Amino acid sequence: MTTPIPVYLDCDPGIDDTLALAYLLAAPNVELVGIGTVSGNTSAAQAARNTLDLLALAGAPAVPVAVGAHDHLDHPYGGGAGWVHGENGIGGVDLPRGAREPDPRTAVQLLIDLSHEYEGRLHVLTIGPLTNIAHALEADPTLPGRVAEVTAMGGAALVPGNITPAAEANVFNDPHAAAALIAADWDVTLVPLDVTMEHTLDEDQRRMLLADERPFVRAVGEVLDHYFDFYVGTYGRRTCALHDPLAAVIAAGAVTPTRAPRVPVVVDVSDGPGRGQTIADLRGQRIGVRDHDGVRTRLVLDVGSSIGQHLVDTILAG
Amino acid sequence: MTTPIPVYLDCDPGIDDTLALAYLLAAPNVELVGIGTVSGNTSAAQAARNTLDLLALAGAPAVPVAVGAHDHLDHPYGGGAGWVHGENGIGGVDLPRGAREPDPRTAVQLLIDLSHEYEGRLHVLTIGPLTNIAHALEADPTLPGRVAEVTAMGGAALVPGNITPAAEANVFNDPHAAAALIAADWDVTLVPLDVTMEHTLDEDQRRMLLADERPFVRAVGEVLDHYFDFYVGTYGRRTCALHDPLAAVIAAGAVTPTRAPRVPVVVDVSDGPGRGQTIADLRGQRIGVRDHDGVRTRLVLDVGSSIGQHLVDTILAG
Repeated sequence: MTTPIPVYLDCDPGIDDTLALAYLLAAPNVELVGIGTVSGNTSAAQAARNTLDLLALAGAPAVPVAVGAHDHLDHPYGGGAGWVHGENGIGGVDLPRGAREPDPRTAVQLLIDLSHEYEGRLHVLTIGPLTNIAHALEADPTLPGRVAEVTAMGGAALVPGNITPAAEANVFNDPHAAAALIAADWDVTLVPLDVTMEHTLDEDQRRMLLADERPFVRAVGEVLDHYFDFYVGTYGRRTCALHDPLAAVIAAGAVTPTRAPRVPVVVDVSDGPGRGQTIADLRGQRIGVRDHDGVRTRLVLDVGSSIGQHLVDTILAG
Repeated sequence: MTTPIPVYLDCDPGIDDTLALAYLLAAPNVELVGIGTVSGNTSAAQAARNTLDLLALAGAPAVPVAVGAHDHLDHPYGGGAGWVHGENGIGGVDLPRGAREPDPRTAVQLLIDLSHEYEGRLHVLTIGPLTNIAHALEADPTLPGRVAEVTAMGGAALVPGNITPAAEANVFNDPHAAAALIAADWDVTLVPLDVTMEHTLDEDQRRMLLADERPFVRAVGEVLDHYFDFYVGTYGRRTCALHDPLAAVIAAGAVTPTRAPRVPVVVDVSDGPGRGQTIADLRGQRIGVRDHDGVRTRLVLDVGSSIGQHLVDTILAG
């Protein structure tokens, strides 16, 4: 038995965040050591409430949950994505209120504290806008030296965006912050729509969650209902993309990217039509993965196998 | 036998332009009624010289060849793409000098004249930067009403660019002009790298051209040599992409696009990292072609069959 990976999760639950959280709580090789929230799918405060309620329902250990940035680097929070994630961020499902309140620290302070406590071992997993990470890098430029690895769900290289024709929502919501993440001196595994859209959870798998006897697992299945409706317009059937869960599964080491070139990724921070897109230099990749010298960001384009059933199996066995 | 399509060709030969020209001269359903040149792969003046020399070598009818814009809308001509097309634009091959000189008219005037002469029937085929077209639209806003259809090689939607990570060269060389083409009230078939990169001409096909007894056809084969070297870095073998020829084959009606949604296409005219890219709204296209209401630009993503042999067969039979 190997030592579990200490993971700091930065998130904005969010329906697929909920699924990712359920996975991380159940994954045997992950130790969730802290959670920061950020505005994105819903507000940072609501995201913290959702997270605390989910943790309570799961009977999870008292992982600190710290509220992070409400507003983004160059613009205020825009009100979330209710049409995708429901008005409360978790598909309109009313969870029993958990007893715990958010950690008194900011998400930035929590992350910095954890980077000392787990120096050289901490894995930073981000599944929301990168605002907290940008603030943490500014507050403590030595942070990257203490972090083992970063896995970030975000971006769209060669596929359409989801919030605009060109941009994925996490990056679009704070392009400057995403640029700061990529510019920092650490190993980043970027998990863009190119690969997340290829992974789905289907209705029969959702029913397996709904049939579980644990209220937490059933709640995860219920939360997904709203998301499944949204994705009919994309996939032509009730299902959902596994954006955040795929990043979690990669961070947990449960799948190894099979095609993930280390290439320059530039975030468009303009106010033009390309705002928030991730321009990756994928020229020359037609004949195989070619890493660019000195680039520490790998862009995941394929992971070889589908993760939907692994996700469900892990949650059910958790 | 149907009446051939009268085609105005706007080009910057250019190696693949040469191949497209050879195809258009040979295609039985095309009548090349005028050619304008523009700076791109080489200067507009050099492109006209190359075109006239190619036409002379082919023993082609005296199609008017008019020199178009040397500089682009928001910047001067940058010196061409010698590393791709050779310093003279046609792979360094020295053609015998043709007797004819360029038409005294500008490319803009030639296009406008032809739009009257072939009113309602003229097909505009562009395989270079869109500078002449933008000038023509400005000079005569009634032009689109007299043009039957426009086919333009340019852009990259969901594939890497060629001149930058995000942009294809024709659009990058004059983003404002490409935006003007798309904004005008005519039917545009945009043929981007997404589909052109899927069509190649290979060494055995080039040898068929080299083995022909006509000096023109042999010259086309010789011109390709330089291009084949360039594409080793892309395809891992001596071959070439059929950018301009594919647009010509589509304009000639010899292949019908099988996947070509009518979608909003926005050209990034900024000076940022996305300059010159074509942002197409391809969200929702995963479950089949969905045309947007009121959009007159169709973006060709697939033509169903490969065109390499058709191209060679047509040129050899011409």
